[in-house]
Amino acid sequence: MRYPNGQKNRSSQRASGASRAMGFGNRGMTLEEDINATNDFYRNTHKAIIHKKPTPVQIVNVHYPKRSAAVITEGYFKQPSTTDYNGIYRSKYIDFEAKETKNKTRFPLANIHEHQINHMKGVLEHGGICFFILRFSVYNETYFMPSEIFLSYWNKQVNGGRKSIPHETIEKTGYRIPFHYQARVNYLAIIDQLYF
Amino acid sequence: MRYPNGQKNRSSQRASGASRAMGFGNRGMTLEEDINATNDFYRNTHKAIIHKKPTPVQIVNVHYPKRSAAVITEGYFKQPSTTDYNGIYRSKYIDFEAKETKNKTRFPLANIHEHQINHMKGVLEHGGICFFILRFSVYNETYFMPSEIFLSYWNKQVNGGRKSIPHETIEKTGYRIPFHYQARVNYLAIIDQLYF
Repeated sequence: MRYPNGQKNRSSQRASGASRAMGFGNRGMTLEEDINATNDFYRNTHKAIIHKKPTPVQIVNVHYPKRSAAVITEGYFKQPSTTDYNGIYRSKYIDFEAKETKNKTRFPLANIHEHQINHMKGVLEHGGICFFILRFSVYNETYFMPSEIFLSYWNKQVNGGRKSIPHETIEKTGYRIPFHYQARVNYLAIIDQLYF
Repeated sequence: MRYPNGQKNRSSQRASGASRAMGFGNRGMTLEEDINATNDFYRNTHKAIIHKKPTPVQIVNVHYPKRSAAVITEGYFKQPSTTDYNGIYRSKYIDFEAKETKNKTRFPLANIHEHQINHMKGVLEHGGICFFILRFSVYNETYFMPSEIFLSYWNKQVNGGRKSIPHETIEKTGYRIPFHYQARVNYLAIIDQLYF
């Protein structure tokens, strides 16, 4: 596993204390908030155009009051059929899913859905750059894992193997994502290394 | 303007009657339904992975009943900050917006938003394939217009020009999208011609 420039290594971060007080890299933001801020920075600096897709909602009832905006009065969350983030970087199609866990020893696969996996397989087949961003929030560690590698663990699970990926495995086969003041989850740095 | 293979020309379609009874190419589906069916076909046949993004909803209140799914009891429609459709085809990033009008002589620009235009400019800057699908529903004519061309009309409007694109202009500078039994709005056929 490669330590990107300027990033503390894991053991020193761990030593520094509890997850909510881990210094520079963590101000109590969720992974989603960090990635959204990162994508805003990438767009504003013309580095990449990458967005989070809206949460899919099944709208059942809408009320149209006079002289004001329509109100959705009954709706349900739908399971997303794709990944959460996609866009373009250096002419390449980018597609990823982000997940965080409070677990200290392994990353559970339970909240990743099969249609998301199938979507990723399709993206890879068509030549896109496809990956997971995985965060162990207790350690404030964020990893980049190419979907090709993730899929090998997924397939083991499907064939009766373990329903999680051990922390050590992610450390070994993933890439630690460097923290950057504005690009808080600076995953394009990893993409530059791996794909260009 | 090029007539794609097997597609009736406009005058013969017009002669055939009202928009809702225009034969093979039109069974009363909206442009969005046609494009969704087309994208399903493209995915199922491994041609491309292109999805419509969910409608963005601002969720204000959610009720969590015991033993059943969470219900959104107050939500509002948000203006989309990007285009409606994106994905990957032949390793290229694809991004487009689809609009239809009942107008017979021109395409109004009123329901296209500036942030969508800015999004498209960014996508072009990064090397993506970016375009509009425009339908004149009265004639059942569907056109492919590269964003580069669309932007020239948009810029005229911004500088005080007309707030619509005349039908003749779209006929001349756009590309008629062929109808295909399964790929009802077979826009990849145009992309093959123009970009590869």
